[in-house]
Amino acid sequence: MAIVLGPTQYGKAENRVVRIYRDTPRHEIKDVTVSTALRGDFTDAHTVGDQARIVPTDSQKHACYAFAKTHGIDQIETYALALGRHFVASIEPVDAARISVDEHRWQRVEDHDHTWVRAGEETRTTAVTVEVGTAGAGAGGSEAAGIETPGPRAWVVSGFKDLALLKSTGSQFWGFLEDEYTVLEPTTDRVMATSLQAWWRYATTDVDYGAVYGNVKALMMRTYAELESLALQQTLYAMGSAVLEAHPEIAEVRLSAPNNHHLLYDLDRFGIANAGEVFHADDRPYGLIQAAVTRDDAPPPGPAWDEFPRT
Amino acid sequence: MAIVLGPTQYGKAENRVVRIYRDTPRHEIKDVTVSTALRGDFTDAHTVGDQARIVPTDSQKHACYAFAKTHGIDQIETYALALGRHFVASIEPVDAARISVDEHRWQRVEDHDHTWVRAGEETRTTAVTVEVGTAGAGAGGSEAAGIETPGPRAWVVSGFKDLALLKSTGSQFWGFLEDEYTVLEPTTDRVMATSLQAWWRYATTDVDYGAVYGNVKALMMRTYAELESLALQQTLYAMGSAVLEAHPEIAEVRLSAPNNHHLLYDLDRFGIANAGEVFHADDRPYGLIQAAVTRDDAPPPGPAWDEFPRT
Amino acid sequence: MAIVLGPTQYGKAENRVVRIYRDTPRHEIKDVTVSTALRGDFTDAHTVGDQARIVPTDSQKHACYAFAKTHGIDQIETYALALGRHFVASIEPVDAARISVDEHRWQRVEDHDHTWVRAGEETRTTAVTVEVGTAGAGAGGSEAAGIETPGPRAWVVSGFKDLALLKSTGSQFWGFLEDEYTVLEPTTDRVMATSLQAWWRYATTDVDYGAVYGNVKALMMRTYAELESLALQQTLYAMGSAVLEAHPEIAEVRLSAPNNHHLLYDLDRFGIANAGEVFHADDRPYGLIQAAVTRDDAPPPGPAWDEFPRT
Amino acid sequence: MAIVLGPTQYGKAENRVVRIYRDTPRHEIKDVTVSTALRGDFTDAHTVGDQARIVPTDSQKHACYAFAKTHGIDQIETYALALGRHFVASIEPVDAARISVDEHRWQRVEDHDHTWVRAGEETRTTAVTVEVGTAGAGAGGSEAAGIETPGPRAWVVSGFKDLALLKSTGSQFWGFLEDEYTVLEPTTDRVMATSLQAWWRYATTDVDYGAVYGNVKALMMRTYAELESLALQQTLYAMGSAVLEAHPEIAEVRLSAPNNHHLLYDLDRFGIANAGEVFHADDRPYGLIQAAVTRDDAPPPGPAWDEFPRT
Repeated sequence: MAIVLGPTQYGKAENRVVRIYRDTPRHEIKDVTVSTALRGDFTDAHTVGDQARIVPTDSQKHACYAFAKTHGIDQIETYALALGRHFVASIEPVDAARISVDEHRWQRVEDHDHTWVRAGEETRTTAVTVEVGTAGAGAGGSEAAGIETPGPRAWVVSGFKDLALLKSTGSQFWGFLEDEYTVLEPTTDRVMATSLQAWWRYATTDVDYGAVYGNVKALMMRTYAELESLALQQTLYAMGSAVLEAHPEIAEVRLSAPNNHHLLYDLDRFGIANAGEVFHADDRPYGLIQAAVTRDDAPPPGPAWDEFPRT
Repeated sequence: MAIVLGPTQYGKAENRVVRIYRDTPRHEIKDVTVSTALRGDFTDAHTVGDQARIVPTDSQKHACYAFAKTHGIDQIETYALALGRHFVASIEPVDAARISVDEHRWQRVEDHDHTWVRAGEETRTTAVTVEVGTAGAGAGGSEAAGIETPGPRAWVVSGFKDLALLKSTGSQFWGFLEDEYTVLEPTTDRVMATSLQAWWRYATTDVDYGAVYGNVKALMMRTYAELESLALQQTLYAMGSAVLEAHPEIAEVRLSAPNNHHLLYDLDRFGIANAGEVFHADDRPYGLIQAAVTRDDAPPPGPAWDEFPRT
Repeated sequence: MAIVLGPTQYGKAENRVVRIYRDTPRHEIKDVTVSTALRGDFTDAHTVGDQARIVPTDSQKHACYAFAKTHGIDQIETYALALGRHFVASIEPVDAARISVDEHRWQRVEDHDHTWVRAGEETRTTAVTVEVGTAGAGAGGSEAAGIETPGPRAWVVSGFKDLALLKSTGSQFWGFLEDEYTVLEPTTDRVMATSLQAWWRYATTDVDYGAVYGNVKALMMRTYAELESLALQQTLYAMGSAVLEAHPEIAEVRLSAPNNHHLLYDLDRFGIANAGEVFHADDRPYGLIQAAVTRDDAPPPGPAWDEFPRT
Repeated sequence: MAIVLGPTQYGKAENRVVRIYRDTPRHEIKDVTVSTALRGDFTDAHTVGDQARIVPTDSQKHACYAFAKTHGIDQIETYALALGRHFVASIEPVDAARISVDEHRWQRVEDHDHTWVRAGEETRTTAVTVEVGTAGAGAGGSEAAGIETPGPRAWVVSGFKDLALLKSTGSQFWGFLEDEYTVLEPTTDRVMATSLQAWWRYATTDVDYGAVYGNVKALMMRTYAELESLALQQTLYAMGSAVLEAHPEIAEVRLSAPNNHHLLYDLDRFGIANAGEVFHADDRPYGLIQAAVTRDDAPPPGPAWDEFPRT
């Protein structure tokens, strides 16, 4: 028996990069938090403290800020791809790079040219993994396991977190399995609230990421609103299906949805009727429903996918 | 020398009350966090553990949920006033009640009848203090120190927190006093970003709170955008002045504004020009500028006002 | 009617200063978060954007780090006093300075010379206000309203936050006033848990701050443990009294204590007895009990005191 | 092409369970946050909203509280195993259960019988996965892929999060690879600080979990202190190796360590020497170093392991 090094990665986390486009009086802004993680054979750094194959995380940070200027931040996915390809191409010991980005959105104050107010609550995210290409990858390996690119292989996952949704009716929960601890009353009308996290993986990198993002989010919200729900499970599957039906470039959708319980408040004891009008919004515990929706011919997921909640 | 009890208060904090209006198929929602604090002579509870004058915080909680039904939550200020007046009027030992409310706003998903998505980032707030009226208060005391109401006196403070604003130009900082620790370079063009907190106190309770709120927020955002700023101090004063000029029912405005530093990233060392385009958004430390703007004939502030940051 | 500037202050918040003492192989560490706020006549900065009387917050930041070396951080109170006196003495427009400090404590790893692990949960705090001295202040004003010092006047408040305490018995709550919303059952045995915040103001600056801090904290914890409590109110008063009895240099104690409810879980419905053994620790809402304990001959509080929760 | 359901799980997250042992006047306390997640064939719940195979998350919550009484909480691992085995054994559609627990530690106030103060900063954690046993699993499959138990198979991962460590010397970083963005100066003496997360997976369930936990934590802290570090990577490997050498029952260790940068503050510009004495503790970005240390004959990890950061 010998003790050996297992998988490793290292990088600079949570670089807070703000990019202003100011070529005309009407400025544009991109505000992101970007994290890098490099993978490769870094055994000597771990076992004997030899840094000869280690590019400092400080250098990775500088690259994040430099690329905001040299490559720009059009979509967070394209920015992440550029960074990932850079690390893999230019730093010899790096076999793979994982770049994750959160976008903090701003909207103009009364259509002002250079002033914004923070928009919304949900945060748009991406995680991109770029791997060194191998001989023949373009012909075979990338079709199955990755996305064909000129050189390295890349996987793109997009998504969002903290999209808070609530419907005040149109949600039921009954007919469930009862065990010795089941005392819950079935209901045909309840509040259903969540703070949705969603990820989806693309089957290609030839994507108009911003347009797809907007449409996926709209489809999910609309499905949440319109489906007469028999369970949060059903709603999640319907949301994922709606996205896959509309977007052939998406191979799989994962959803993680807390069931943020709204408990009907007992006002009867004070002689007050409460027909689904007053609720206590409870903090903890909460239900947590997680599901993936995919295609039966979807390519296998790449390395980026493994790091999301199982669902 | 004797040890004595000083000021006290007690209540139930952070009740999470959600009220659905469902009389028609088009529902409405109000989502608030409400806290109560009662004041009076509770000496015996403290010194000998006698609870005879103590209404449990549990009862206060029930009142918060019950009032969401019986009085409704039209504006957070009217809801807080109703609760405050209730405690003062119906519980004999209570001399004063302070009710504070945060509102969590929702907006409809594609104009759907009963589904919403969380709106925006700023949180609308209020803090109301109601005091038992005293003989003659209506004639003299309330004019100066409070707001005349039929019975108890009331003070209303409204505001918001966490309104994130950023302008990418139109902000300067130069001509400042230099001491032995001053190395800052003056600038005539910088990013100015903040996460604004604002409170304002009313001179009356005869207010259309929702309309005033919307207008005050708009005036502050517009002033932030349009003023060519020589300092955050100047911007705050202009914001407060704009509000007071437009709203005679407001006696004083307080503002607390972190200067969320956006540091121009040094890309020169990599041979990349950076003319105000790429910034690091720093977390800590941050400047913190606080100021009040008032009228020279404003009535003195009431008890609710004392509990806000001094500014 | 004219619009006028009210009170203002400005400074640099949350400077994260770490000081290592390394004169011998056995190092010492002080880890603090320090915030500055300067007061004075800064009208022109607000009304016309003239910064001639404004020392940048950047300079205040540098002073915080420089003083960690030149004056050291023995106790957070002495460090804050040194900073406050510096700003008042060396920057002409400054009439008063308020310095607040949080200390993050470390303890040695197995008595190692230069390695520590974070200690405990409670955070030690101080807030010091230094004001420019006025003629005669030493003779009269400072006795009543401040603490006599050579030159400026100073007020010192010390305290802590987030001291989590729990007792599994020895706490009762009964005999309370009942109103229309009272359904709570009285109890003679409950769990009492809190996350205590405490502040105390000194009547002098001639204090061994570290020793007093340790003793005050121990007295409060011991009182919490040993008193058979009839209400959290009674416990708070007993804690404050114990401190005042032992520490003549302390003029007043303020306490803010959430009642972190531990709800006995109903296991009867599953045929399981639960005699005070299994609880749900609820998040929100929580009771919030606040009280001050003082002396009948205590000097009036200074400006630093006004900015703490009223209690 | 057809749209199909992928992996799913559902449960009740963050149940806040407090267990008091009060059979003698000297009480004991266990305070945990426990989350459940059940896996199985729940297709109909997703695709057609049929709940016939779904035990409500409400029932899972009750089981968490009930088991705190019926099985007790000796070690979080044994409590989680009991819950996991219960769900798999008693609910027919459940193929696997994942139970994760955080423990919030308390220490006695002056050795008091029933009063505690929150202890430390690190949180002890576990994640247990129990799977329905298959024919022959006990003979072969469980040796390789799981842990042999009477009936279902189980995997136990233990760990902690947020263990903050800092050493003021004994850390170097030099000899690294330089790319076009490298401007970092090498150093032979720096502050090294982290907030460590660690997980380790056991090769057996016949473990004295509490004793192992204490020893693993002590070994990691001691190694952090005593190793003259050439990089955080080297320190992590040494920590993992020390654990594996001492604990044959542990198959693999994973570590995730932010490099919480302490930046030497430039006081030269103010004429003040700063020889490693005053630092700015920066928030973001931070380095993030992740590594696994294992044995070359370690059994393959089970399902619980897949859900931790890749490292």
